[in-house]
Amino acid sequence: VRIAHVGIVVRDLDAAIQTYRLLLDREPKVEDVPGQGMLEAVFEFGQSRLELMQPTTPDSPVGRFLARRGEGLHHVAIEVEDIEIALARAKKMGLLLVDEKPRRGSGGSRIAFVHPKGMNGVLLELTQQE
Amino acid sequence: VRIAHVGIVVRDLDAAIQTYRLLLDREPKVEDVPGQGMLEAVFEFGQSRLELMQPTTPDSPVGRFLARRGEGLHHVAIEVEDIEIALARAKKMGLLLVDEKPRRGSGGSRIAFVHPKGMNGVLLELTQQE
Repeated sequence: VRIAHVGIVVRDLDAAIQTYRLLLDREPKVEDVPGQGMLEAVFEFGQSRLELMQPTTPDSPVGRFLARRGEGLHHVAIEVEDIEIALARAKKMGLLLVDEKPRRGSGGSRIAFVHPKGMNGVLLELTQQE
Repeated sequence: VRIAHVGIVVRDLDAAIQTYRLLLDREPKVEDVPGQGMLEAVFEFGQSRLELMQPTTPDSPVGRFLARRGEGLHHVAIEVEDIEIALARAKKMGLLLVDEKPRRGSGGSRIAFVHPKGMNGVLLELTQQE
């Protein structure tokens, strides 16, 4: 169990990249994630990373977040050893799940989101590396 | 450079601890932080940690956050090699600093907060371990 990454919603990815790369003195990788309606810039730090996410369409999950909440921290991803066990535990606890079953994340990972309701307002991503 | 911790504001620390300890299968350390007007529960994961923060007074920074934004993600802490260099860089960039100079954090660390304005709505903590 560890923090795998933190996701941040931004309005203008290019401008946000300038800020974060200057402050952190790192270069990100930029990726188009059409399935999620967003562009993403990933800053890798050894085992963890920061993800800047800009919606490419207002009706994407990230676009709706931006309209409702504005820019800022969006989710935190926790790496677990066994995502099936973690999801079963979440179900048993009565937590509201965004994903009932794990789906494919980037780099061959398996991921599932737990809804902020029940997690003190935190959108939590469970992730298991292959 | 790496993610040191993520801070989460909660209304009821005992209830939040129950949720997170069950889901993450870990036990936290609970600390009173009277200087910040809050109680804190820290889940350690190797090199990173989750901090649940409950205000003990409404006029604390965390109390004002709770009143204004509700529960949820509050800040992300990035460990840097040299906090003086990182702060000098932030000043040169024209970022608004909460702490102009590093102050003492927990466990002998030196910390400084960068204001969300200029960081795409993210309250960023810079931290250097001794």
